[in-house]
Amino acid sequence: MASDARPIRVVGISGSLRKGSYNTMALKAAMDLAPEGMTIEAAEIGDLPHYNDDVRLAGYPPEVERFRAQLTAADAILFVTPEYNYSIPGVLKNAIDWASRPPSQPFDNKPVAIMGASMGVLGTARAQYQLRQMLVFLNAFPLNKPEVMIGAAQTKFDASGALTDEATADFIRQLLTALAAWTERLR
Amino acid sequence: MASDARPIRVVGISGSLRKGSYNTMALKAAMDLAPEGMTIEAAEIGDLPHYNDDVRLAGYPPEVERFRAQLTAADAILFVTPEYNYSIPGVLKNAIDWASRPPSQPFDNKPVAIMGASMGVLGTARAQYQLRQMLVFLNAFPLNKPEVMIGAAQTKFDASGALTDEATADFIRQLLTALAAWTERLR
Amino acid sequence: MASDARPIRVVGISGSLRKGSYNTMALKAAMDLAPEGMTIEAAEIGDLPHYNDDVRLAGYPPEVERFRAQLTAADAILFVTPEYNYSIPGVLKNAIDWASRPPSQPFDNKPVAIMGASMGVLGTARAQYQLRQMLVFLNAFPLNKPEVMIGAAQTKFDASGALTDEATADFIRQLLTALAAWTERLR
Amino acid sequence: MASDARPIRVVGISGSLRKGSYNTMALKAAMDLAPEGMTIEAAEIGDLPHYNDDVRLAGYPPEVERFRAQLTAADAILFVTPEYNYSIPGVLKNAIDWASRPPSQPFDNKPVAIMGASMGVLGTARAQYQLRQMLVFLNAFPLNKPEVMIGAAQTKFDASGALTDEATADFIRQLLTALAAWTERLR
Repeated sequence: MASDARPIRVVGISGSLRKGSYNTMALKAAMDLAPEGMTIEAAEIGDLPHYNDDVRLAGYPPEVERFRAQLTAADAILFVTPEYNYSIPGVLKNAIDWASRPPSQPFDNKPVAIMGASMGVLGTARAQYQLRQMLVFLNAFPLNKPEVMIGAAQTKFDASGALTDEATADFIRQLLTALAAWTERLR
Repeated sequence: MASDARPIRVVGISGSLRKGSYNTMALKAAMDLAPEGMTIEAAEIGDLPHYNDDVRLAGYPPEVERFRAQLTAADAILFVTPEYNYSIPGVLKNAIDWASRPPSQPFDNKPVAIMGASMGVLGTARAQYQLRQMLVFLNAFPLNKPEVMIGAAQTKFDASGALTDEATADFIRQLLTALAAWTERLR
Repeated sequence: MASDARPIRVVGISGSLRKGSYNTMALKAAMDLAPEGMTIEAAEIGDLPHYNDDVRLAGYPPEVERFRAQLTAADAILFVTPEYNYSIPGVLKNAIDWASRPPSQPFDNKPVAIMGASMGVLGTARAQYQLRQMLVFLNAFPLNKPEVMIGAAQTKFDASGALTDEATADFIRQLLTALAAWTERLR
Repeated sequence: MASDARPIRVVGISGSLRKGSYNTMALKAAMDLAPEGMTIEAAEIGDLPHYNDDVRLAGYPPEVERFRAQLTAADAILFVTPEYNYSIPGVLKNAIDWASRPPSQPFDNKPVAIMGASMGVLGTARAQYQLRQMLVFLNAFPLNKPEVMIGAAQTKFDASGALTDEATADFIRQLLTALAAWTERLR
C-alpha cells in the first residue's frame, strides 16, 4: 500500500467459542500478519443472545448494539469459521442474524475475506460456500481468491496457540493483502 | 396406514423464537394435521446455550440433554424453518450443532421432513437447500417431495395463529403422509 | 452514465436452445433495455461441442475460439439462465467449461449480472445460486442485487416474444443500471 | 448379500469424456470391485446432443432413447464425476437434463451412489454437493455415506489406468456395499 493510503480497519470474527479453537488461533495469527496500514480487531459473539425478533423490536440488547457498532465502524470483515455439520456454526450464524437487521445493515457494501480451519482435509470448504450464499443477501463483497482452507489444523499450531506452519502463514498474508487491495478497489 | 402399523413419533422443531412466528404456527398446524398413527411433539430450542465444545466436554447441560433425548426417542424429525440471510436461523443451527455430537448422534439414520414459511415469494427455499446439505453429514434421510415452501405467510394464518389457507393445509397433509410412508419404508 | 464514460460492451448468454425460450426472450428484452453507453451482444453456445480435454489439447475448435474471443472482448457478462433440475442447463455449463481453460480465462476479474426466467414461482433461484458458486472459481464478480428471477414467465411475454410485463422490464433495467455502475466501480 | 438376494444392476456414469480420465478409471475400478450380486455397466454420454426442448418434442433422438432406456432398466445409479468450475461437467448435466424429461423419469425413486476424482485436495466435493441438490428434484435417493472424494488422483492409478491405491479401493468397495444395502432397503 502506498504510504498515503487510508488505514483499513478490519473486524475479524471467529466462529468458535472454545478456548483452544484453531479458528481463534488463526484469527490471532491474522492479527499479527496484517499488512502495513491494516488493523484487525476481534469481535466477541459468544455473549449475544439467541436472535429473537420480539427482543429486537423491544430494543437491541447492549451486547448486540456493541457488535453492530463494531461492524459498522469497520472497513472490511474477516470471517474465520469452523465447519460444523457442513455449514457455519450456529453461534456465528446467530451473530450474522443480529447484524443483518434494520435500521442499518453493517455488512452492506463491505469487502469480506473468508478463512477457516479444521482437523480434516477439506478445511471448512462446505461451510465457506454456505457463508458465501448468505453474503449475497447481505450485499457484502467477498474476495474470490485466495480461498484459505486450513486442513489438518492440529499440525499447524503449537501448544501456545501460535501458527507454526509457514505455508499457512503465507496464505493468510496473501488473503489479507488481497483484502487490502479489494477494499481500495471498492472505495 | 394399516391399523396394525406401529405409531410414528415425530419431533417438530420450529427455527423461530418469536411469539408470532409463522413457522411456529405452521408447526402447530402440522401437529393438528398429523395423519392417524402419527404424533408430533414440539421441541424447545430457545433455552439451549450457544454451542461450545469446552462446555460439552464438561458435560452436556440439562437443557441439551433434554433436547438430545427427545430427538433420540423420535422416529422421525420435522424441521419448520424460517429463512434468515438465505440460510436457516443461527438458533436452529445451534440446536443441530448440540445434537450432532458424541456419544450418540440422534439424527443418524432418521427420516426427515422439511417445511418453512416466509412473507416473500420463495418460501424459505434457500434455507431448505442449505439444511439439506447439513443432513448429508448427519446421515439423516430427508424426503425429496413434497417441498413445502409457504410464501406470503402473512395471508395464510389468522390473528389467533390458525392456518386458514386450505391449499397450504393440503401441502402439509401430503408432507406428513409422505413422511409416514418414508418412515415405514426405512424401518 | 456521464457522457464521457467509456462504453460498456456486455456479452449476454441465454442458457436455453429452444426457439420459444423465455430466457432468450428475456435476453432480447435486456438488449433493448440497455442503458445509454451499454451494448449487449448475444453469444451462441448451441454449436459448441461437448467439452473434452483431449479436444482442447489438440487445439480449440473454431466455434470455441469464437466464443472465447467474444467473452474476452467483453467488459461484463450477463447470464440469462433457465433452471433445469435445480441447476443451470448442461449446455450453459458446457459453455462455461470451454471458456474456463488456459491460456486465458475470460471470466477472470469480470463483472457479471444474472437473471433467469421460469414458468414456476421460484424463477430459477436454485440455478442462480449454483451459478454463483461457479463464479467463485472463475474469479468473476457477480452483482448481489437486484436478483432478477422471472417467475410465471408464460404470462410476461407475448406471442412474438416481446416482454409485456412492465414490472419485469423495470427489474431488468435496474439490473443493467447496476451492472453499469458495478463495471465502472471495478475498473 | 444373502445368496437368494435379487441381483442389482447398476448403471455407472463418468462425467469426463477424455481418454485418460481419472473418473473413467475410477468407474472401471468400481466395475471390478462390485460385490457379489451387483453388476455395473457404463453409460455413454458423449454422443448425446445438447438438450433442446424443440428436439425433444420432435421425438427423442436414438442416442437419448438408448441412454434413457439404460437408466430405466437399472436398479441403481453410480455417478463418477469430475469437478469443473466447482460443479459437475456440462456434459454430465446435459445427460441428466435429457434423462429428466417426460413421459417417464428414470431417476425417480432410484438409489444413487456418488464418487469423484480430482488432482487437487478436495476431490470433487463442491461438484458432489451441487449434484445432490439436483437429485432432490429428480427424487433420487443418494447415499449419505461414504462420500468418496478421490484427491491427488494422479498418484492413485498406474499408466494402464488401473487403480493402485488400496485405501481408495477400500472406499469404493464400501460405497458399493452400502449401495447394495441401500437398494435392498428401499425395495
